Amino acid sequence: MSAALPARDLQLDTTGRLKHFLTIEGLRRELLERIMDTAESFSSVTEQTVKKVPLLRGKTVVNLFFETSTRTRTTFELAAKRLSADVLNVNIATSATSKGESLLDTIRNIEAMHVDMFVVRHAESGAAHFIARHVAPHVSVINAGDGRHAHPTQAMLDMFTIRKLKGGFENLTVAIVGDILHSRVARSEIHALNILGAKEVRVIGPRTLLPAAVESLGVVTCHDLDEGLEAVDVVIMLRLQKERMSGAFIPSEHEYFARFGLTGKRLSRARPDAIVMHPGPVNRGVEIDSEVADGHRSVILQQVTHGIAIRMAIMSMAMRPDREGQSGDRLA
Amino acid sequence: MSAALPARDLQLDTTGRLKHFLTIEGLRRELLERIMDTAESFSSVTEQTVKKVPLLRGKTVVNLFFETSTRTRTTFELAAKRLSADVLNVNIATSATSKGESLLDTIRNIEAMHVDMFVVRHAESGAAHFIARHVAPHVSVINAGDGRHAHPTQAMLDMFTIRKLKGGFENLTVAIVGDILHSRVARSEIHALNILGAKEVRVIGPRTLLPAAVESLGVVTCHDLDEGLEAVDVVIMLRLQKERMSGAFIPSEHEYFARFGLTGKRLSRARPDAIVMHPGPVNRGVEIDSEVADGHRSVILQQVTHGIAIRMAIMSMAMRPDREGQSGDRLA
Amino acid sequence: MSAALPARDLQLDTTGRLKHFLTIEGLRRELLERIMDTAESFSSVTEQTVKKVPLLRGKTVVNLFFETSTRTRTTFELAAKRLSADVLNVNIATSATSKGESLLDTIRNIEAMHVDMFVVRHAESGAAHFIARHVAPHVSVINAGDGRHAHPTQAMLDMFTIRKLKGGFENLTVAIVGDILHSRVARSEIHALNILGAKEVRVIGPRTLLPAAVESLGVVTCHDLDEGLEAVDVVIMLRLQKERMSGAFIPSEHEYFARFGLTGKRLSRARPDAIVMHPGPVNRGVEIDSEVADGHRSVILQQVTHGIAIRMAIMSMAMRPDREGQSGDRLA
Repeated sequence: MSAALPARDLQLDTTGRLKHFLTIEGLRRELLERIMDTAESFSSVTEQTVKKVPLLRGKTVVNLFFETSTRTRTTFELAAKRLSADVLNVNIATSATSKGESLLDTIRNIEAMHVDMFVVRHAESGAAHFIARHVAPHVSVINAGDGRHAHPTQAMLDMFTIRKLKGGFENLTVAIVGDILHSRVARSEIHALNILGAKEVRVIGPRTLLPAAVESLGVVTCHDLDEGLEAVDVVIMLRLQKERMSGAFIPSEHEYFARFGLTGKRLSRARPDAIVMHPGPVNRGVEIDSEVADGHRSVILQQVTHGIAIRMAIMSMAMRPDREGQSGDRLA
Repeated sequence: MSAALPARDLQLDTTGRLKHFLTIEGLRRELLERIMDTAESFSSVTEQTVKKVPLLRGKTVVNLFFETSTRTRTTFELAAKRLSADVLNVNIATSATSKGESLLDTIRNIEAMHVDMFVVRHAESGAAHFIARHVAPHVSVINAGDGRHAHPTQAMLDMFTIRKLKGGFENLTVAIVGDILHSRVARSEIHALNILGAKEVRVIGPRTLLPAAVESLGVVTCHDLDEGLEAVDVVIMLRLQKERMSGAFIPSEHEYFARFGLTGKRLSRARPDAIVMHPGPVNRGVEIDSEVADGHRSVILQQVTHGIAIRMAIMSMAMRPDREGQSGDRLA
Repeated sequence: MSAALPARDLQLDTTGRLKHFLTIEGLRRELLERIMDTAESFSSVTEQTVKKVPLLRGKTVVNLFFETSTRTRTTFELAAKRLSADVLNVNIATSATSKGESLLDTIRNIEAMHVDMFVVRHAESGAAHFIARHVAPHVSVINAGDGRHAHPTQAMLDMFTIRKLKGGFENLTVAIVGDILHSRVARSEIHALNILGAKEVRVIGPRTLLPAAVESLGVVTCHDLDEGLEAVDVVIMLRLQKERMSGAFIPSEHEYFARFGLTGKRLSRARPDAIVMHPGPVNRGVEIDSEVADGHRSVILQQVTHGIAIRMAIMSMAMRPDREGQSGDRLA
């Protein structure tokens, strides 16, 4: 498979089914809907007394984390274990690469142990794609966040949360607020909302934190939070990635909160039934007021719960043990 | 549930059954006996060829360690795996809190993944109680050591060891020797021994290492080891917590051993069938002579073995999958 | 069991069956063949859809790593999980020994939790033997690399690879190239090849990297790579252990490659059907050219795959749940 192929082709096998999950961009609406339908069936798994299904018994999932992220690693580990897969956590920062082994040699080696899936987190954009292009035919790759590029499972759990609470996307106005520039979450959400047919996607933030030509992604931009929240159905607050920013982007956290922090007062501009989302972890008093984060419109913890079901859905669809047997879920 | 409620109420559900296991203080003798009876039934599990029971299959146990303790974490991990639970190890020191997330946000997030139990180790007294007060109704909390306050599973495995070897507590004189002041183990043991009806509990140590007014806990104090060991049935040596002490408490390890180190000669003051216990890891030549630690009266390794059975008992009682179905183990 | 007993006796139980796997030296050909036959039966396990057998269900394997090695630890963890054992990873460098506990106390403690196997990696030669001499009768010990002494599971996976590709050993000339002096892998391979009846074992390297009197191990030595590769059937390249070498052994990596690096041109001296092996991780351009490492004669990744099957074989033979029941595999 050539590096020149677009990501959509890389993500689907020759029959049109999910093989790798690297980016939302270029995927079809039917596939995103099917992921959410599958997650719906797993939602009940996490609520029943015995929370395990034997779907991936005997399969081996490798969490290949080049960046530490206990939170994300934990959700994938739990999702895999609830599908009865074996899980290996490999922290590459402290591993073979320190012996001078190349990324590709590391992948080839772990792959030779007959593993079935790599869940990849990497600080560089494109890392998961690179790995997906080079793995053996039987191995699936899930992007668990690459640089500023994409975080597609986070976007899908957000879509799943919106669908469960709003019923659909057609009539929705969704605001994404904050540091769009550095956010792989925002990029993946914008693609997903457009593919799923949201009425309007607004990105709201200071000029320094919006990418140039962001409108080309299919969004409306706004630099004033009060104005931007007018009549929206869904507010997605982004985490202020302090560790990624130099002082040049914002004058101070205090001033940032004064201009772009979500307060109860500001939220009153949105529709009365608007929901508030955040990918976590929350910086209370920086991008969001505690009163809102813990308030009755906040669905932040539901997002976490849905994250397990969505990851179970994506993992089981990509590793489908009955890949040959079934054809019902083919995207013709 | 209010923070003002006493711990006993926090630990039991409305029908009087174990829900959280945070401290020995305030628990009833019947409950401690039931924990030991349940451990007895698991004792055989660790000796049979297949060491697994499916009691907690599909349940998720999270080891939430804010202090590193490979030894304690390992015993809980093994106990959970032998009950067929899934185990997640989360080392919080290196995790989300470093991104500025509060303890409560961390708990809420992991809890939202539908986990069933937190095993908590924390350097601050009261941490496990705090978490137990704030978790969702379906989640149980086990205290795996909080500051100087309590280490109730260690105390229970010690009680289990005593009961197995001495048959009961009524006629026993038990000496606890060493750094009582800094020891959460000692505090939990004193409560357990008194609840279980030991004839006498003696605490032996230099004045600088005994808490003020320790007699109010129901113990006899003694500052001379030879005198204190006179006719005791059980000697519990504490670890000298070097890392917690400044030079002010003891002049030197050498002098400490000369005054409070357990030697064969000193042990001859105890009853001929006295047993010697230690929570580990042992500082040989500091609080105990190797000859005694490895001698025929030492039951130190039996304590370790019993630790698995006791933790299996407490975990399965607190997470009881048949919580609604059964009433036989209700403490009326 | 006395420390004076030779390793062979330590490794076999009184009926002649495998109990510990510490070194190849002194083992009988029948046992090595049986390990490979057993691995053959597990080879299919790693290729079928559900890659698990319930052979060691309920058994507990402890990876006791005193040296970090993600790669080796991973292969043992995967092998144990595919046998359905529970796995505990204990990194001793960061654990109890930092509290001043002795190695023996650490072993005794973990053993008291009724574990069934220690997989030991240690920087000092003899560490696994020492542990095997002191564990309880029901515990097996596998040497996963000790100092410069032995790495017997690596040697066995190499033998398994050679047997699969060459059919046997009788007519083979095998060259081992590189840093023989510091290599536990080389030492174990030399013993295995001689026991299995290889026609000739050549060790090739600069004088500074060959042990004194290496010929006594049953090898032919050679200081010129071109000459040494003449008509060989198998070339085993060793990793240049940069971290173990001071500048005194080789002038520079560049010069080392010029004299002892395996290139396509040099490989043409070997038989037309010669295979190239390497224990990994490969230093491309230091001991081997990328063209050769990735070429059609390289079986480096097959070695990794075989490593899982060989470790499953050794673990299941040593922990044999039917130790009492069967006698068919006794080595009389």
